[in-house]
Amino acid sequence: MKIYIAQLNYKIGDFKNNAKKIISEIEKAKEKKVDIVLFSELAICGYPPEDFLLFDNFLDQMQNELNKICLVCRDICVVLGTVRRNDFGEKRLCNSAVIIIDQKIIGYKDKTLLPTYDVFDERRYFDSNEKQVVFEYKKKRVGILICEDLWEHTKVLTHVKYKLDPVEEIKKLNPDVVLNLSASPYYFKKQDLRINIFSKVSKYLSCSLIICNQVGANDQLVFDGNSMYFDRGNLKSSLEKFKEDFFLVDLNQTYNNLEIQSDPIEDLYNALVLGVKDYFKKQNLKKAVIGLSGGIDSAMVLCIAKEALGKENILSLNMPSRFSSLGSMEDSHKICENLDINLLDIPIDHVFQNYLDLLAPIFNKKPFDTTEENLQARIRGMILMAVSNKNGYVVLSTGNKSEMALGYVTLYGDMCGGLSVLLDVLKTQVYKLAKYVNRKKEIIPKEIIEKEPSAELKENQKDIDDLPNYEIVDNVLISYIEDHLSIKEIIKKYSYDDIIVNDLIKKIHLAEYKRRQNPIGIRVSKKSFTKGRYFPIVQGFVK
Amino acid sequence: MKIYIAQLNYKIGDFKNNAKKIISEIEKAKEKKVDIVLFSELAICGYPPEDFLLFDNFLDQMQNELNKICLVCRDICVVLGTVRRNDFGEKRLCNSAVIIIDQKIIGYKDKTLLPTYDVFDERRYFDSNEKQVVFEYKKKRVGILICEDLWEHTKVLTHVKYKLDPVEEIKKLNPDVVLNLSASPYYFKKQDLRINIFSKVSKYLSCSLIICNQVGANDQLVFDGNSMYFDRGNLKSSLEKFKEDFFLVDLNQTYNNLEIQSDPIEDLYNALVLGVKDYFKKQNLKKAVIGLSGGIDSAMVLCIAKEALGKENILSLNMPSRFSSLGSMEDSHKICENLDINLLDIPIDHVFQNYLDLLAPIFNKKPFDTTEENLQARIRGMILMAVSNKNGYVVLSTGNKSEMALGYVTLYGDMCGGLSVLLDVLKTQVYKLAKYVNRKKEIIPKEIIEKEPSAELKENQKDIDDLPNYEIVDNVLISYIEDHLSIKEIIKKYSYDDIIVNDLIKKIHLAEYKRRQNPIGIRVSKKSFTKGRYFPIVQGFVK
Repeated sequence: MKIYIAQLNYKIGDFKNNAKKIISEIEKAKEKKVDIVLFSELAICGYPPEDFLLFDNFLDQMQNELNKICLVCRDICVVLGTVRRNDFGEKRLCNSAVIIIDQKIIGYKDKTLLPTYDVFDERRYFDSNEKQVVFEYKKKRVGILICEDLWEHTKVLTHVKYKLDPVEEIKKLNPDVVLNLSASPYYFKKQDLRINIFSKVSKYLSCSLIICNQVGANDQLVFDGNSMYFDRGNLKSSLEKFKEDFFLVDLNQTYNNLEIQSDPIEDLYNALVLGVKDYFKKQNLKKAVIGLSGGIDSAMVLCIAKEALGKENILSLNMPSRFSSLGSMEDSHKICENLDINLLDIPIDHVFQNYLDLLAPIFNKKPFDTTEENLQARIRGMILMAVSNKNGYVVLSTGNKSEMALGYVTLYGDMCGGLSVLLDVLKTQVYKLAKYVNRKKEIIPKEIIEKEPSAELKENQKDIDDLPNYEIVDNVLISYIEDHLSIKEIIKKYSYDDIIVNDLIKKIHLAEYKRRQNPIGIRVSKKSFTKGRYFPIVQGFVK
Repeated sequence: MKIYIAQLNYKIGDFKNNAKKIISEIEKAKEKKVDIVLFSELAICGYPPEDFLLFDNFLDQMQNELNKICLVCRDICVVLGTVRRNDFGEKRLCNSAVIIIDQKIIGYKDKTLLPTYDVFDERRYFDSNEKQVVFEYKKKRVGILICEDLWEHTKVLTHVKYKLDPVEEIKKLNPDVVLNLSASPYYFKKQDLRINIFSKVSKYLSCSLIICNQVGANDQLVFDGNSMYFDRGNLKSSLEKFKEDFFLVDLNQTYNNLEIQSDPIEDLYNALVLGVKDYFKKQNLKKAVIGLSGGIDSAMVLCIAKEALGKENILSLNMPSRFSSLGSMEDSHKICENLDINLLDIPIDHVFQNYLDLLAPIFNKKPFDTTEENLQARIRGMILMAVSNKNGYVVLSTGNKSEMALGYVTLYGDMCGGLSVLLDVLKTQVYKLAKYVNRKKEIIPKEIIEKEPSAELKENQKDIDDLPNYEIVDNVLISYIEDHLSIKEIIKKYSYDDIIVNDLIKKIHLAEYKRRQNPIGIRVSKKSFTKGRYFPIVQGFVK
């Protein structure tokens, strides 16, 4: 039996084009005499469709496209993720796999385990169905599971303990092969976890396990593809990461075991590139403008943007004020030379002085404070937005996760933009990414990497004057944000000073109102801002 | 039997103060020889606690406070909303009512129906428990239901159809009285719906039904209180709306039936006032700054802010550019006189010209467009933020729902602020609110009410040049946003031109990226932005 894995990149609700892609793969598969074609979860509409699912006409169009897809399925079996209307459940819909054989829908397998945590909210829309499905096709017993259905078996999930393990249930039905339709987004080092789980499940089922994952970025979520084929616990094939890819599994053929070597920082970089690329491409946008500070974050965003959009589509601005160092300006010029990207100099000091004069009666001789710092950042934000509005560029904002967590950013200043590229990348990870970017030759000047982080918004400012060093900051952030450790537990784990830890946690909650106004960011960690993490702004727990 | 309803205002996670309030009411109730004291849903932590529920130390502190509360419950029964740890469910927690009698916890009733739609995400945290609870106390059979548990019975909920009706189940247990612990947020005209449902349920159960609802605003949600006592289908008592209140129901006493007359616009106004008030009070903030345009929206925000915070805490700014009309400036001065609120004039034209000069090489003689309009709005935003930063004011933003829906606002301009007061108020509702504000005497000058809406960002600009009139806009918005009608259905319903409707719906989706960066708003409709409505920015369904 030949099973064709079609790892595709879908745009949410773009039914005609999504269906066209699907149909084109079915045609290709037919030429290759394939028996079954496997697509990913919610393929027709793309994952996640969110509240579009509340519109009847959205569901109707999905059904129309499904009907069209059926027509091309002569002499072939297609397993495809779609939404099934479910008139008798608590929710009106099921997240389903439709099984089409020879142009007819022969049945559905509804998803059993509906993730409703972190970035997932499937219980908002879908009803669970506990029934497991195995169908016979060309003398093979083919089982179907949808994404999360695989994940309870190895008990790796935290904060959720499903009552039912679909893997255990499907084993009772003696499948020869189990197909899994996934829309499993990337996060840092998730691949190891996946291989571990899939391998165990395939071993337990003692059969073939074929996972087809979605690829491509939809808003915050980056789906890394990386679909896989396992046989009795052994990885046999692994599809490309971060791009569309296809693979034909022949169950009658013997495959060597596959060992995967991967560099998590390379994956992280590629995830960010794909996040930027799809944000633009799927909106028919082309051009980006980036404000360069001479620091490592904006340098990194420039590298990512060039890779995603091409150098001809990038404009960078250098906007010095009286506090900008000569070094920073030189460094900005140097990286733009290295990347062959246009750089415009727009000094802001005159406008800055203008504001100071205008506001003098209100400031009333109060000393220089963050107000004046913010003014500079906001003037830069305004200039970026003016360039954006007049010439059709999208502003890419450059703040990293560490500073966004602590509110060490200016609302309406450096937070301006359509997409916040590094929102989910810790400062210590930005340095690792820089090393990766420079692996063959120096792209990011070493001066940028080696200088002490500074916003340069007042005389001799250094991040370290306001914050602990970023290694401490990032350890605390991971412990608190990803692992939900309490302040006490963090202090115990790292032997950090309790005043420092308390202050950092307090800052995280005080900055909640700022982060709510951040552009969406590309999610690359287990717990990101702007999707999957929900805290009240007004609260009395962390004081 | 005497049952005391304690309708209180809780701050999320402020355990010590929430428990103090609860204990103080129990003490008062004891003096009044009350048998049972009833509090609202999740009273100890406040509703909604969101992802704080993922922290073990949050749950531990809640448990500590519950233990303290138990100690004061000598010779009295207390029914109180809390979180129960649930080691055997899919989720680790239940949304529960704890029953304390004479200092001991005699049991829990876990919520059965867990709303996971609109602003609710209870399945993210909680496990459902199908078991219904009636306990005997002082020879009465007392049943307990939690909020949504009441709402399935009358089949008014859309997009959800629970498999089980707790009202039907509890009837089998023959209660004499049913207590309902609620955290039911306000929206426009919701009171009618509630009275209808509660009356039917109480009639069906043919017993007393006592609902204790939370009051107060937590972030976007305004809980209106308005707790009620029904007997065999008849409303007997209704507690205050939008403030803390208390009522002692004596089941042995006969009460007259109550007819409620209420003005939905008055309720809307009070909801907005409470939304502003609690946002400030619960964060220990006092002062607000508002940019006045001479239009009706900023005038309305000024009225609401004065009512919520007191005139001494409000500063307003008039920031004319070359396009501001003399009339607008006069109108701004007039409303500030009427309200006795400080107004500062800060003309922005000089800074505006400065930007134009600075950006001339980039703008490259391209014609005046929204870029220059946005520049003015952003200069105003920057000035508001500078006043905010230097003098500790919170900026209240003034955009209404109609313009926020269509993106007829400037990101980082008039969208600046900590709280977006009118984010969920349609333009046509703003006019109704103005009439309400002026019911006794003219507060908002009639010139402001009668003038044609204009942003005054270019010569002779009028909203009507860019948009249909607001009656059409608002009808389309309600149909699309609240009722999820398709474009076709809207055209059919109103016989509007299909180009107009198509264009409006397209604008709604194009503005999604802007709204993601809006400050949180006060939710007063069935479907608000910034909470309860989730759509992808990048999508191909509406083109």
